[in-house]
Amino acid sequence: MSHTVEILSVGTELLLGNIANTDAQMLSQGLSELGLNVFYHTVVGDNPARVTEAVNIAKKRADIIITTGGLGPTCDDLTKNVLAKAFGKKLVFDQESADRCKAFFDRIGRTMTDNNLQQAMLPEGCTILTNDWGTAPGCAFYADGVHVIMLPGPPSECRPMFYHRAVPYLQQLSEGVIFSHTLKLFGIGESTMEAQLRAQMNAMTNPTLAPYAKEGECELRVTAKAATVEEAQVLLKPTVDQLFQLFGDKIYGMDVSSQEEVVEQLLREKGLTIGCAESCTGGLIAKRLTDVPGASQVFQGGIVSYTNEVKHKVLGVPQELLDQYGAVSAPVARAMAEGARKALGCDIALASTGVAGPDPDDRGNEVGTMFVALATPDGTYVRALHLGNRPVRARLRTQTAHHAFDLARRWLTGLPCDDQP
Amino acid sequence: MSHTVEILSVGTELLLGNIANTDAQMLSQGLSELGLNVFYHTVVGDNPARVTEAVNIAKKRADIIITTGGLGPTCDDLTKNVLAKAFGKKLVFDQESADRCKAFFDRIGRTMTDNNLQQAMLPEGCTILTNDWGTAPGCAFYADGVHVIMLPGPPSECRPMFYHRAVPYLQQLSEGVIFSHTLKLFGIGESTMEAQLRAQMNAMTNPTLAPYAKEGECELRVTAKAATVEEAQVLLKPTVDQLFQLFGDKIYGMDVSSQEEVVEQLLREKGLTIGCAESCTGGLIAKRLTDVPGASQVFQGGIVSYTNEVKHKVLGVPQELLDQYGAVSAPVARAMAEGARKALGCDIALASTGVAGPDPDDRGNEVGTMFVALATPDGTYVRALHLGNRPVRARLRTQTAHHAFDLARRWLTGLPCDDQP
Repeated sequence: MSHTVEILSVGTELLLGNIANTDAQMLSQGLSELGLNVFYHTVVGDNPARVTEAVNIAKKRADIIITTGGLGPTCDDLTKNVLAKAFGKKLVFDQESADRCKAFFDRIGRTMTDNNLQQAMLPEGCTILTNDWGTAPGCAFYADGVHVIMLPGPPSECRPMFYHRAVPYLQQLSEGVIFSHTLKLFGIGESTMEAQLRAQMNAMTNPTLAPYAKEGECELRVTAKAATVEEAQVLLKPTVDQLFQLFGDKIYGMDVSSQEEVVEQLLREKGLTIGCAESCTGGLIAKRLTDVPGASQVFQGGIVSYTNEVKHKVLGVPQELLDQYGAVSAPVARAMAEGARKALGCDIALASTGVAGPDPDDRGNEVGTMFVALATPDGTYVRALHLGNRPVRARLRTQTAHHAFDLARRWLTGLPCDDQP
Repeated sequence: MSHTVEILSVGTELLLGNIANTDAQMLSQGLSELGLNVFYHTVVGDNPARVTEAVNIAKKRADIIITTGGLGPTCDDLTKNVLAKAFGKKLVFDQESADRCKAFFDRIGRTMTDNNLQQAMLPEGCTILTNDWGTAPGCAFYADGVHVIMLPGPPSECRPMFYHRAVPYLQQLSEGVIFSHTLKLFGIGESTMEAQLRAQMNAMTNPTLAPYAKEGECELRVTAKAATVEEAQVLLKPTVDQLFQLFGDKIYGMDVSSQEEVVEQLLREKGLTIGCAESCTGGLIAKRLTDVPGASQVFQGGIVSYTNEVKHKVLGVPQELLDQYGAVSAPVARAMAEGARKALGCDIALASTGVAGPDPDDRGNEVGTMFVALATPDGTYVRALHLGNRPVRARLRTQTAHHAFDLARRWLTGLPCDDQP
């Protein structure tokens, strides 16, 4: 039997726009992976009458209702009260939940106020979903042909409660498994990628293929449904092989999180170190390299040279180059990378220089004119970029860092580094 | 008359969790500011029957329906078709919209395919909301006692279409204005802040006071409803004054976006420059300083010294200090800040060193042990941090950068810099 899920989020803060509904996104992703179809998200405020009405609508059109929010002591346990009433259940006191709540306060060194005991009132006969990440327990029950699962609202509790408590409950409702691979691409536009795939995508049913664009990169997710993970992998293999053939070295990794993670993995495998010299990216390349846990094994350091003085004094960029070509130029990008390699004592070094805006530079270089460079033991490579068609500062910086990492990955995997992507 | 708004988002990608519903958040914020009450968000997939059902529910409980998504040529203009039918309207061809769409393609140098002409089919008698940020026009009409406004889904189109097209339409429906100030605080916990305000908050009706916690900082938003902005400001003033009295120098700004923005504003006012030396934050301080447009007026550069060699060679940290105290220590933080100030030739310099994890360092410093320092013409200040209670790498780095900026702001405003927050 195929299930229909509705996610019902309770919280006035969502309706005021104070936060985005990232719980619904997280749950939707997780439920899709379980092979459960989410047909509706509903958001309603902390108002018993409107929550009741929303539950009555959800009961008619879904057979799994997952609620988020409204479980804490300050909101009078709105969600539990309304859901219990809507399904004709009483709330009963659960001593173990009260003890757990008390223990949580002891652990963080605070005194539990009495209003917290409300959290131990739970629908009779429910499965209690113990909360090791906060005070409010969740719960699940089956009534009137509907499975109801209630999860706390704070994302730091909702996510682990879903994966560690709700998923085991839901797995028994789902047949088989859903298994995906995600290919990450750089250097191809989303529309070009889609155009090459559209006919094929529409014809596919299992596995399915879904393209996404994210911050200047592209993703392709192939997903198969099967009885076991092994069977799903067998189903996926021909499509994955075909995609690698189609997009070649535009694919920088499968099931990886970022280009910088791939670059660091390659550096570790080869026993090499990296450093950087940044102008327009202003620390973003170093920041992304050090986002990766364990970065210190391969990352030596970086120099953010926002002035010509720092470029000259700290990186050793010759003053003549700065005078003749200006800071935003291929020769300066080259000298920055080579200077960083020397100053930081690393095997390879990345550099960036360009105009991130809001204004053109004093030599008349347009916003979006960027250079990235890679200095290596066998020579230095420079790539010129013209990113001016959508000149938003944050986007330009992100895109420039992407190109720097692309250069590094290409060199580390033996691909030519002189091509323009 | 008081209005009730429902935001109806159409898009299977939301139900699969590929993206969060940030359009709904943005719209909710904007609608609140207009004094319009959002009571429901509904998300439904690209399915005509389910969209129709969702529209019929929304018609009963809201008198303003704002849709997002489903306007593009690839989705067969699902939203316009369904909404027009639900309100008994025909779609008619609009030559001007067709011409605009064609001109958009010309501008980006591509050929318009015929399916794009569907976008020029619009409900008869509607107000056309021209789209200067994409191809699909939006529209608005009033029928059956309900105002319907349709906006495109991509956030880069939805936001300007809302503020430049929908808001003028909505303003005539809203009485008076909603006006807010946002105070930003650092160095106080959310629960402490809330505890000091709770009784007052509950008693307030106009203005209202709402606390938020965001990435290790706190916000307080005071909002007044009045006939004019000037009257709202008069209503807000006593509360704002009282909050400044209550929280003093924990408030780093009003209606500002970040500590780094405040620090750069202060530097500009004083004609001073800044630089940084980073270990554990790995470029994040420089990245945040250069996120601010116009940073080059005050920011000289930064050095990310991830190894002892770089600390010694580039920053000039004495080898004896590194040997005696280790890289994660107050003396090294001090020497890094002073070294950066000298190497980068800036007036003040920030430094960070610490253990961001995942593992303790080789001297047994726990994850979350951090030092930030500020070198200035009148001396160097060091703050020791123990952030180990929630040791998540990204959070530790963010929090350490917050503390560095807090030091800089305190020094720039003449506050004592030796206090532990």
